[in-house]
Amino acid sequence: MLPKAFEDLITEFMKFPGVGRKTAERYALYTFDRLSDEDTDRFSHAIASIKQEVHHCPVCGHLTDQEKCDVCSNPNRNDSLLMVVESSKDVFSIEKSGEYKGYYHVLNGNISPMDGIGPEDINIATLWPRIVDSNKVKEVIIATSSTQEGETTALYINKVLKDIDVIVTRIGYGVPVGLNLEYADDLTLSKAIENRRKI
Amino acid sequence: MLPKAFEDLITEFMKFPGVGRKTAERYALYTFDRLSDEDTDRFSHAIASIKQEVHHCPVCGHLTDQEKCDVCSNPNRNDSLLMVVESSKDVFSIEKSGEYKGYYHVLNGNISPMDGIGPEDINIATLWPRIVDSNKVKEVIIATSSTQEGETTALYINKVLKDIDVIVTRIGYGVPVGLNLEYADDLTLSKAIENRRKI
Repeated sequence: MLPKAFEDLITEFMKFPGVGRKTAERYALYTFDRLSDEDTDRFSHAIASIKQEVHHCPVCGHLTDQEKCDVCSNPNRNDSLLMVVESSKDVFSIEKSGEYKGYYHVLNGNISPMDGIGPEDINIATLWPRIVDSNKVKEVIIATSSTQEGETTALYINKVLKDIDVIVTRIGYGVPVGLNLEYADDLTLSKAIENRRKI
Repeated sequence: MLPKAFEDLITEFMKFPGVGRKTAERYALYTFDRLSDEDTDRFSHAIASIKQEVHHCPVCGHLTDQEKCDVCSNPNRNDSLLMVVESSKDVFSIEKSGEYKGYYHVLNGNISPMDGIGPEDINIATLWPRIVDSNKVKEVIIATSSTQEGETTALYINKVLKDIDVIVTRIGYGVPVGLNLEYADDLTLSKAIENRRKI
């Protein structure tokens, strides 16, 4: 009973993570009713051009529209540190915190035997040669999630790197700063207790 | 630090209701990483074409890609009932419930003096002539929200229609079916008490 063009747009919006039918209807109605013709042109163009203009950095796997990404092409960062993350989203988050000054290696996924995703399906093959060739990396910080897939990936990377002379560390997991203990879930709490330190 | 095309797409997604920076980043990354080239083509085309293919029904204001909307062009509905709703979303919801067999009048907004939205800015001018010309409407059901704007709009419509020989009613507001009383907010509870009926 809805116009086909409207139904089509709802279908497209429903492909996005966490977007159900109701939200997709809201987005489609917003597109139609509240966006100007210029807005829809710009939006439609932004979607069409992202695949043409953006690609994964050949060095680290992060997003870029240059030959290399902003981080990899910055010579002033600490080249003794290499942080392995799951996705470009993690690079955004860590860069926003401003705490980290080393380089990144973006896996663009996690190993997940259950979903048929093996080491060859993520950006892991370049990690070993990258470290060996640079000959400057002293510590590899594995910052994959503390999910089963993240842990599997961390263990795999640790195994791959065990013959190279680098320290392999895992970022700390525990109760988020500012969060009351009672709101932390069981897994986070057990991680927090496991990761306890002498004060 | 993000590729411009990526930042542009985030900006576009952030225009949508309830979409903040984090969600927009997630959508943009999904567009880039998980949608195929065909998917982005289809999505981009769906957005570009909605304004060209869809318009408001000249009779009731609902969405359509035909001369008149599906409801208005259906002669088998009850022409003694006319329900006034805020938006096409409300038509979706009510049609889904299957309870209502009359026609609709879609305001595409509410009167909101605070936001400078007067009766002339919403689809209200055609309501009076529509009822008078048809000479068949016996009851106008006002189904605007029970917000301040919705109530203002309901009162205004009631005033506009007071010289016409139609019954003007307001849909019932109260505690949603299946919701425990303790989870209902104060306004809903007071509405529910106000709208009590003899059993």
